[in-house]
Amino acid sequence: MPGVPPTRFVYLGPEGTFSEQALRTVPAADRGVLTPARSVPEALDALRAGEADAALVPLENSIGGQVGVTLDELAGGEPLIITREVVLPVQFVLASAEDRPLDSVRSVAAHPQAGAQCRKWLRDHVPQATVVDVLSNATAAIGAGTGEFDAAICAAIGASRYKLHVLAKDIADNPDAMTRFALVARPGPPPPPTGDDLTTLAVYIAHDRVGALLAVLTELSVRGVNLTRIESRPTGERLGRYVFFLDCGGHVAEAQMGEALQGLRRICADVRFLGSYPRASHGEAPPRRAPGLSDEDFTDAASWLSELRNGG
Amino acid sequence: MPGVPPTRFVYLGPEGTFSEQALRTVPAADRGVLTPARSVPEALDALRAGEADAALVPLENSIGGQVGVTLDELAGGEPLIITREVVLPVQFVLASAEDRPLDSVRSVAAHPQAGAQCRKWLRDHVPQATVVDVLSNATAAIGAGTGEFDAAICAAIGASRYKLHVLAKDIADNPDAMTRFALVARPGPPPPPTGDDLTTLAVYIAHDRVGALLAVLTELSVRGVNLTRIESRPTGERLGRYVFFLDCGGHVAEAQMGEALQGLRRICADVRFLGSYPRASHGEAPPRRAPGLSDEDFTDAASWLSELRNGG
Amino acid sequence: MPGVPPTRFVYLGPEGTFSEQALRTVPAADRGVLTPARSVPEALDALRAGEADAALVPLENSIGGQVGVTLDELAGGEPLIITREVVLPVQFVLASAEDRPLDSVRSVAAHPQAGAQCRKWLRDHVPQATVVDVLSNATAAIGAGTGEFDAAICAAIGASRYKLHVLAKDIADNPDAMTRFALVARPGPPPPPTGDDLTTLAVYIAHDRVGALLAVLTELSVRGVNLTRIESRPTGERLGRYVFFLDCGGHVAEAQMGEALQGLRRICADVRFLGSYPRASHGEAPPRRAPGLSDEDFTDAASWLSELRNGG
Amino acid sequence: MPGVPPTRFVYLGPEGTFSEQALRTVPAADRGVLTPARSVPEALDALRAGEADAALVPLENSIGGQVGVTLDELAGGEPLIITREVVLPVQFVLASAEDRPLDSVRSVAAHPQAGAQCRKWLRDHVPQATVVDVLSNATAAIGAGTGEFDAAICAAIGASRYKLHVLAKDIADNPDAMTRFALVARPGPPPPPTGDDLTTLAVYIAHDRVGALLAVLTELSVRGVNLTRIESRPTGERLGRYVFFLDCGGHVAEAQMGEALQGLRRICADVRFLGSYPRASHGEAPPRRAPGLSDEDFTDAASWLSELRNGG
Repeated sequence: MPGVPPTRFVYLGPEGTFSEQALRTVPAADRGVLTPARSVPEALDALRAGEADAALVPLENSIGGQVGVTLDELAGGEPLIITREVVLPVQFVLASAEDRPLDSVRSVAAHPQAGAQCRKWLRDHVPQATVVDVLSNATAAIGAGTGEFDAAICAAIGASRYKLHVLAKDIADNPDAMTRFALVARPGPPPPPTGDDLTTLAVYIAHDRVGALLAVLTELSVRGVNLTRIESRPTGERLGRYVFFLDCGGHVAEAQMGEALQGLRRICADVRFLGSYPRASHGEAPPRRAPGLSDEDFTDAASWLSELRNGG
Repeated sequence: MPGVPPTRFVYLGPEGTFSEQALRTVPAADRGVLTPARSVPEALDALRAGEADAALVPLENSIGGQVGVTLDELAGGEPLIITREVVLPVQFVLASAEDRPLDSVRSVAAHPQAGAQCRKWLRDHVPQATVVDVLSNATAAIGAGTGEFDAAICAAIGASRYKLHVLAKDIADNPDAMTRFALVARPGPPPPPTGDDLTTLAVYIAHDRVGALLAVLTELSVRGVNLTRIESRPTGERLGRYVFFLDCGGHVAEAQMGEALQGLRRICADVRFLGSYPRASHGEAPPRRAPGLSDEDFTDAASWLSELRNGG
Repeated sequence: MPGVPPTRFVYLGPEGTFSEQALRTVPAADRGVLTPARSVPEALDALRAGEADAALVPLENSIGGQVGVTLDELAGGEPLIITREVVLPVQFVLASAEDRPLDSVRSVAAHPQAGAQCRKWLRDHVPQATVVDVLSNATAAIGAGTGEFDAAICAAIGASRYKLHVLAKDIADNPDAMTRFALVARPGPPPPPTGDDLTTLAVYIAHDRVGALLAVLTELSVRGVNLTRIESRPTGERLGRYVFFLDCGGHVAEAQMGEALQGLRRICADVRFLGSYPRASHGEAPPRRAPGLSDEDFTDAASWLSELRNGG
Repeated sequence: MPGVPPTRFVYLGPEGTFSEQALRTVPAADRGVLTPARSVPEALDALRAGEADAALVPLENSIGGQVGVTLDELAGGEPLIITREVVLPVQFVLASAEDRPLDSVRSVAAHPQAGAQCRKWLRDHVPQATVVDVLSNATAAIGAGTGEFDAAICAAIGASRYKLHVLAKDIADNPDAMTRFALVARPGPPPPPTGDDLTTLAVYIAHDRVGALLAVLTELSVRGVNLTRIESRPTGERLGRYVFFLDCGGHVAEAQMGEALQGLRRICADVRFLGSYPRASHGEAPPRRAPGLSDEDFTDAASWLSELRNGG
C-alpha cells in the first residue's frame, strides 16, 4: 500500500533471538520496521509511548513455563491488548565461530533455561565441555562469535545473525518444546472472530471471599467457555495476593464470551481484558462446545426471551 | 370505565370456597363476572377456549402442599401465564344449619384435608362428633345446610353462601396456615416489574444427564436469582420422569432473570415460562441480592462489555 | 419357621385396594397377619405403637405424583425407616355387581384420581355413563356391590374382594402408569446392600442460606451419588418453608453414600434418614457410576490416604 | 543430644544468599551441617541420594512469583515432602568492597530480579550508576568484593559473608516483599497438626475432561478446605499441559483434609502429596472455617453415620 507508513514493531531483543524469529512469522513484519528492545518492560513502554505500533514478547514456554515479566507488564500500567499469538517450536542449535568437530568443544555458553533444555544432548554429544551460564541466547551467540566460548546454544536466527557455523541442529531434548509469544498493541477493536479464538484476561479476586476462584470458573463453565490456561502471579503487595491470567476459548464479540465477561466483571474485584485473537494451532483440534452452548443456542435463547418479554 | 365489558373470571368452585374468597381480593373482580368451575381443568379449559378472561385456581397450601392438578394443567396444554398471586390465610369455621351448642354436634362433614387441619380443635371441642369425609368444603357446607350432617368445616364465605350459623371461628390448628392461589391468563405481556416479583417456570430435564438439576440451579445461582420454591410433578410417562416447577425471585424483564432464563433454555430439554408477577407479601422481607448482582451491576457490566467490543 | 410368630403387617385400607395388592407381593406377607388401616397416619401410628411390625403405604404415583400424607408422616413423629419398595402397575378394571353389557352402564363410581386416569377409556367405551366421585377405590367397589352404582373403577383385587364381575380390564389410559409403595418398619439395621439400592432422606435447609439447595446437590454430586427423585413438602410452619425428600442411588453402608450423608449432616439444618433398601426394577437399568466413583475408587483412595498419614 | 549425629542440611547456594539466611531460622540448623548446592536440582538430588537429611529451597517470592525449578523438581523424580515453610522479608542491601559515598558508585551488579525490586531506589539514590545483570545475588557480592563492580545488591548475609561494607540497607522498593522457602525431606510421617497448617499438592488433570479444574476446586470447597495458592507449571510434554500446585489450609491428619484428598485422588489423573506443615504466620490471621466444617462437625457427622449403619 503506497503512502501507508510501515508498521513499527518492537521485540524482545537482542537481535537473533526467538522473539525476532517469532516476529518474522507475522506477515506485516515483512514490510515493517523491526527494533529490538533490551527487555520486555522496555518493549511495552515503547509501545505505550507511541514509539512503536506493536510489540512481540514471549508469554510462556512449554518447558520453562510462564514468562512472569510479560504477565506483570500486561496486568499493570496503561492497558494493552494481545492481537495475535505466535507459537514457535524451540529449535536450538549448537553454533561456533568456526566449523569444528564436536569433540573439540571445551566450553559452551548458554542461557540457563536453554542449557537445561539441551542437558541430555550436551551430556551425550559434548560430555567434555563446560556449560557456562549467560544472560540470553544472543549473549551466548555473541560470546561464541568473539571466541570467548568455543560454542553457544542459540536460535538458528542467532547463529546466522552473528555469522556462526551451526555444529548441530535440533539439539533440544524435547522435540515438542514450544514457546508462545504475543503480539501486543494499544487498545482498539480486536481482530474479527474466526471461530477459533482465544481471549486473555487478568482477573483480581477479592481475597476475603471463600470460594472466589470457584465462582470465577463457574462463570466460565456455565456459559460453556473453556479455560485453556490459568496462571497466577503475585500482585506485588504481599505473599498470598495473586492475579490470575486466564486464556479462554472464544472471542469477546461472541455471545457466550460476552456473557461470561459480564459475569466476571460483576463478581471480581477487577478484570482486565487483554485481547481476543485467533488461536495459533499447534497440533490440537479446537475444543468442541458442549451441547446447548453453541452460537445457535445463544441466538435461539435470545429470541425466545424476546418473545417472552413481548408476551408472544 | 363505561363501555368496557366487565372481565369474565372463572374460579375453582363451587361457590363459597376459598378460591372465590381469594378472587374477591382482586380489585377487578368487583366489576367482573365470576363463574365457578367444577374443577381446575374445567376452569383452565374455559380460559383457553376464550370463555373467560382469567382464572383463579389454588397453587399450594402451607399444610397440604402442592395442588398437583393445577401444576399439571399449567405444564400441559395451550400455554397460560400467571399474572398475579393471592395468598390467603386458611380460616376455617364450624358451621351448622341452626345455632346449637357444640356438645350437641354428633357429625361433622369435612374435606379430608380440612379435617386434618382442624384435627386438634375437633378433638378438644367436639370430641363426641364423628368426622365424615366429603369431596369439598362446599359439599360439607351444603350437607350441613340440608341437615345431612350436624355441622360442616368450611370457609367463612361458604357458611354465608349457604346461610349457615357459624358455631366457631378460626378453628384451624395452625393459625399461620395459608393457601396460595394464582390468577391465570392467556399469554400476553407480563405486568411491569415492581422490584419484588416472582417468575414461575416449568422445567424439563434431559433424564440422561447426571447433575442436570445441579446445572439448573447453577444457572440461577450464577445470576443471583433466588429460588423460593421447587416442586416436582411426574410427567405421566413413567415413574422417575419429573417436571420441576420453580418460583424464582425476579421478573422476566430484568437483566438477571433474562440471562438466567436464556441459560435454562439452552441446557434444559424444555422450559415453559409461566409468568412474572408481583410477589404477594406474607410477612417476609424480599430477599436481598448478593453483591455484584444488583441491576446496577448488570448495567455496569453491559456497558463495560460494549466498550471492550468497540476497543474502548 | 415353627415357633416364630407371623409378621404383623398393616396397610392402607380398606381391603381390596392397591396397597393390599402391593403388600401381597412381599414374600413374608404369605405367612403374615394383614390388617387394613383407615389412613396412612393410622397405619404408621400402629407401627410406631408396636401393634404392627411393618406398614405398607403408597409413596407416589406416576400420574398423581407424591402421596403427601405419607411423606409428612415419615418426616414427623417417631423415626421410621423404609425397608423395601414395591412398584405396582396401575391396572384398573371396570367392575359391576352383575355381568352386563357396557352400554347398559349409567353410573360409574370412581375415586377422582382413578376417574382421571381412565378418562379417555370411559369416554370411548361408556360415553353414556355419569362418573360419580367417591373417596376411595374400595368405596367405589362397595357401592357397585350394593347396586348404588352400576359399576365401579377399582383394582382387580377389589373386584374379587367384593365379588364383582369384571366388565373390562386394563382400562387406564396410560398402560405404563405405576404406583410406588414403601414397606416401613421401626428403626433397625437396614437390609444389606445389593449393589442397586436406594436411600431416602428428608432434608431441612436453613432458609436463610442462599444456594442451600445447590449445596445439598453438590454434596451428592461430588461423591457420585445420583438423585433419582426430589420432592418438596411444606413444613407446615408457613408458606415458603419446605422439607425435601431425596431418593438417592446407593446404600448407607457404602463408602460413597456414607460420605455424602455426613456432608449433608454437616450443612443441613436437619437430615432424617428414611432407609436404604433394594431398588425395585421397573424397566430401567441401574444408573452407572461416574469414573472415579466406584467402590474400588473409594477403597483405593482410602488406602492411599492411610499411607500418606503414615508417611509411606 | 549427645550421640545423635547433626542433621545434614543442603540449601540453594552460594553461601550468603537468602536461602542460607532462611535456613538459619530453622532451630535444628544451629547444630546442623550446612552445605550449599549450586542449583535447586542439585540440592534435591543430594537429598534424594541420602547425602543430606533436608534441603532448603525457595518456593515463591511476592514480587517475582513462583520459583519454577523448585516446583518442577518437587513434582518429578522420587517423592519428597515439605516439612516446614520459612517466610523471609526481602531485605536487600547495597554493599561495596569499601565504605564510599553513594554518588561515587558508577556500577552496580545485581541479579535481574533483585535489580527490578530496587529499581526506584537505584534511580533515586544512585542515578549515575549502570546496573549490570549477573546470575545471582552472591555473584553480585563476589563481583563487588573483587572490585569488578563498585557495588552489589545482595542479602545482608551476603555482604557479611564476603566482607563488604553496607552502603545502604532496606533498599527494596516494596518493604513488604517476602520470599517463601520450603524445608524438604524424604517421605516420612508429617509433623503433627498444629491447628494452622498447610498441605501442598501437585495435581494432574485429565485434559480431556471439561470443567476438570472446577471439579478439583469443588472437592476442596465441599469439605471447607481453603485454597491459599494455586500455581500452574507446564508438564513439559507440550503447550497446554499443566500440573497444578495447590496450597490448602489444613493437615493430612485432619478429617476434612483427608476426605478432600481422597476426593482428589479419585477424580484426578494423579495427585502427588507434597507435605503438611505448620503455616508460617506472616501477618495474616488463619482462615476461619465455614459453619458445619469444623473438626467437631466432622466428628459429629461420623458418629451419626455410625449410628445409622447400626440401625440406631
